[in-house]
Amino acid sequence: MPRIVDHEQRRSELAQALWQVIYERGIDGVSFRAVAEAAGVSVGRVQHYFADKEELIHHGCRHMVTAAEAAFGPDPGDPDPGRARAALLDLLRSPVPQDETFRQGAAVWAAYQAKAVSDPGIAEIVVDAAAGRRRILSTLLTTARGGGGQETGTDALLLAALSEGLAQRVLVGELPAEEALGMIAAEVDRLLPR
Amino acid sequence: MPRIVDHEQRRSELAQALWQVIYERGIDGVSFRAVAEAAGVSVGRVQHYFADKEELIHHGCRHMVTAAEAAFGPDPGDPDPGRARAALLDLLRSPVPQDETFRQGAAVWAAYQAKAVSDPGIAEIVVDAAAGRRRILSTLLTTARGGGGQETGTDALLLAALSEGLAQRVLVGELPAEEALGMIAAEVDRLLPR
Repeated sequence: MPRIVDHEQRRSELAQALWQVIYERGIDGVSFRAVAEAAGVSVGRVQHYFADKEELIHHGCRHMVTAAEAAFGPDPGDPDPGRARAALLDLLRSPVPQDETFRQGAAVWAAYQAKAVSDPGIAEIVVDAAAGRRRILSTLLTTARGGGGQETGTDALLLAALSEGLAQRVLVGELPAEEALGMIAAEVDRLLPR
Repeated sequence: MPRIVDHEQRRSELAQALWQVIYERGIDGVSFRAVAEAAGVSVGRVQHYFADKEELIHHGCRHMVTAAEAAFGPDPGDPDPGRARAALLDLLRSPVPQDETFRQGAAVWAAYQAKAVSDPGIAEIVVDAAAGRRRILSTLLTTARGGGGQETGTDALLLAALSEGLAQRVLVGELPAEEALGMIAAEVDRLLPR
């Protein structure tokens, strides 16, 4: 189905331009005109792919979640404890910004989180992503512990919140990324003694 | 000095109006006109208290930090371990939104954090606040442990990041406030065994 692939490809390219606009002007500064300019296309072209501004903004939020899952999403069905531990660590480290491109992406994600409070559509996407991340972490913890029946929900939430809180401090420039990554590794060692 | 007090009082009132505008339109949507309308005053009146939009936005950020410190700031010189433990718990619970007003304030703070990435003036205020919070938590931990020479910096950072990460999940609606508060208390119990 090449036409559908093409359609999604074009929408993804416009999402990149949208993120640039959000980074520079905030979510409330988004307009079809600003996104068209950032993408180097006509306003009509943006209108061809998105019915309205809200659809574009929500698509950009979902696309950010999908891209992160594609980059860091482990296979939750893999039964190997060692690989589960490594995947757990990767997933916990993934929100910590480690270069400028990532920092801009994290800033856009932070803008979506701030906007979620007053925009139910964004809230739904952000909440689904956060809940999904917690579920995957819980599954990985269970597998890394050899599949025993230990309670992992609380530990998964603790690790998720810790990594997100540390990432926020790195994002604003209060904490070096290395320190955040070291603390995440230390907490995984504490909860998953080798 | 009634005139100076009056001046600061008026600036605080305008900060409230500014927060309302940020909540509704984002930081990039702030204008003297919008803040004047939200405050029910003339544009000239806003201009009388702030030289430009940037000064107004930065003042609103600093005022948010000052207000939070006034509401939750413990006396770091108090040598009583029990009171230090209680103050530690209060400070860790303070970012968790527990009512609608607080939720709106937390959303504005989240908007400032997102903007800190591209605005050095906001970054400085946000980083100072985060570093200050970490120092106070470290002092309270030392006092709560009876003033012994234990290393508390890592524990303070862990507690700070955990409470901020949990608060973010409560803010977007992924986690009930009660669950976040319970997890914070459990972590304090783990790090400060009674």
